[in-house]
Amino acid sequence: MNIITINENGFLDKIKGKKPLFTCVISSIETTTYIPISGVHRDVIKYTPAADVELVFCGKSLTLKTPPIDSTGSPTPAIITRSCVELKNIKNLHIDAGAFIKPKIPFIEIDYKPTGKIEEGKAMNNSKELFKKGYLLGKNLEADILIVGECVPGGTTTALGVLLGLGYEAEGKVSSGSVNNPHELKIEVVKKGLKKANINKNSSVFDVLNAVGDKMMPVVAGLSISFAERNKPVILAGGTQMSAVLAVIKEINKEILKNNLIAIGTTEFVLNDKKGDLKGIVEQIWDVPILASKFYFEDSEIEGLRNYCKGSVKEGVGAGGIAVYSIVNGLNSYIFKTHIENKYKQLFKLAQYL
Amino acid sequence: MNIITINENGFLDKIKGKKPLFTCVISSIETTTYIPISGVHRDVIKYTPAADVELVFCGKSLTLKTPPIDSTGSPTPAIITRSCVELKNIKNLHIDAGAFIKPKIPFIEIDYKPTGKIEEGKAMNNSKELFKKGYLLGKNLEADILIVGECVPGGTTTALGVLLGLGYEAEGKVSSGSVNNPHELKIEVVKKGLKKANINKNSSVFDVLNAVGDKMMPVVAGLSISFAERNKPVILAGGTQMSAVLAVIKEINKEILKNNLIAIGTTEFVLNDKKGDLKGIVEQIWDVPILASKFYFEDSEIEGLRNYCKGSVKEGVGAGGIAVYSIVNGLNSYIFKTHIENKYKQLFKLAQYL
Repeated sequence: MNIITINENGFLDKIKGKKPLFTCVISSIETTTYIPISGVHRDVIKYTPAADVELVFCGKSLTLKTPPIDSTGSPTPAIITRSCVELKNIKNLHIDAGAFIKPKIPFIEIDYKPTGKIEEGKAMNNSKELFKKGYLLGKNLEADILIVGECVPGGTTTALGVLLGLGYEAEGKVSSGSVNNPHELKIEVVKKGLKKANINKNSSVFDVLNAVGDKMMPVVAGLSISFAERNKPVILAGGTQMSAVLAVIKEINKEILKNNLIAIGTTEFVLNDKKGDLKGIVEQIWDVPILASKFYFEDSEIEGLRNYCKGSVKEGVGAGGIAVYSIVNGLNSYIFKTHIENKYKQLFKLAQYL
Repeated sequence: MNIITINENGFLDKIKGKKPLFTCVISSIETTTYIPISGVHRDVIKYTPAADVELVFCGKSLTLKTPPIDSTGSPTPAIITRSCVELKNIKNLHIDAGAFIKPKIPFIEIDYKPTGKIEEGKAMNNSKELFKKGYLLGKNLEADILIVGECVPGGTTTALGVLLGLGYEAEGKVSSGSVNNPHELKIEVVKKGLKKANINKNSSVFDVLNAVGDKMMPVVAGLSISFAERNKPVILAGGTQMSAVLAVIKEINKEILKNNLIAIGTTEFVLNDKKGDLKGIVEQIWDVPILASKFYFEDSEIEGLRNYCKGSVKEGVGAGGIAVYSIVNGLNSYIFKTHIENKYKQLFKLAQYL
């Protein structure tokens, strides 16, 4: 099987043959401009969310000449996401929750202003409003199932912050887009933020989000609840960042999790990450299905993709979750890998060097 | 029958029982800030597009304390549109093509910058790109049928400009949101613009749009063609402004009009307007269905609605077209009128004075 499952519980059958909408919620975080919590290459960090969703939506990045790469030269997972969009003809529409640079494609604006300073405990002041907006937006989106990804450079730090703020054991457990996961730095940043915002046992989920979350989280929570309420399956497409969203959903509407309509869809790279522990986080929250797509990049002709197996990038832009959907709906692994490789070559115009 | 039809040609059957998406494309025009071509109240003209789509999307205007009114005190047709959304549970999502003030709801951003100076022949420089964006967006929207409205204060002037630029006889034929239709002023403005931009028989449709159009037009053309190509019916929900869009569609893809999938849906107030001639314009372009909804406002208890019958407002925010859809799909006229009246009272908190 090309999908690794934990607590699958019949979820994969629910997404078979269904018409999905894929959406990627993007945000930037001010803290990332002066503290190196993100694995995204510093030169492109402001442009990455826009360039990623442009690539998914129209097949190329418009904001950057080539698609984003990480600091080791590995390509953005948006290449995987776009391959699924092309191969399975998936409708997609993306949401800005405060990217520094706005995409040059039609996109849904939900908050113009970026996520703020995590170490100050001032991530945002409108998480409840963002939740409501996400919820109302979700009610107006037509699809059988929702696949919702994220692109938030620095977002594993905010995930850590929200998980700690809500009382989960998450230290050393969030993944990273980089090979070297700077756990200590992330912990330092969010502990400062939680302290400055006086987060304690009586704080609400929105207090925690306002202090150390990112704007993607309440939006995805709102979207997910609105779909699940209509009895439509939701794939939270991401790694440990989506576990934080799951925790947020549980705080807002615990009942909704009982219907087994919300799953986490990620990559094998996150699930097998020795420097993170997605499973260990999720089992503290709720036994939702964890579904991880396999890519067989070990023997890829592209070094940047082989590096995924060594811990580069791992996940992002909903790549793992949309791949789970695509594989369940008949996408052949060989065709998939070849398509991703060809897309890489085409986009980086490297074919002549290979 | 509560719908007046011209060239109906089986269109109403095609929209029966179908799941629609309603979208309103908004734009502002710089010219309206210093030349009185629009019937919208001058104090609110910058805020009107945002306030209108907010009302449709979430039931109240967030940008203004009360919904927009025209210069005679008549309420925005967005009240009609919202009533349809509520009564028929219609999914809706709106598109900004350059409103001065951005809506405080999630909305699709397609162009941040307003439409420019019509009298200078500098309406925009990106109409072709906007068409492509609208087209690609349309391909990512899921619905059985598209109902697409507009809110562009000053938009009958740009409609006149585009129709003249494309060689149609349109002088004295475009409607107005005001009782007194300032035909001479509109003609003066667009003739200046057409001359300054050197529009002639060899100009392309995009040259004409760039000179004297508004940004709503290429976006709606793109959306419409993308739906019609997938064999899905489209209601161009508006009056003479939508006839200009029809002319744009014909220039870009004449073939698509042969499938009888694109209709104009408007109000009886536009169709019967003695100071405009929607029918006279449309029959020069293509014999598409013209469908006009009836409202029975003559004996309304609300003066602002009775004024619609005397020429105030007439149409806008897709009111006529979404009403056509709603009526075809079983909306009772009495319930409809009562709902609109109650919405008016609720929104203007005037119940106590009536």
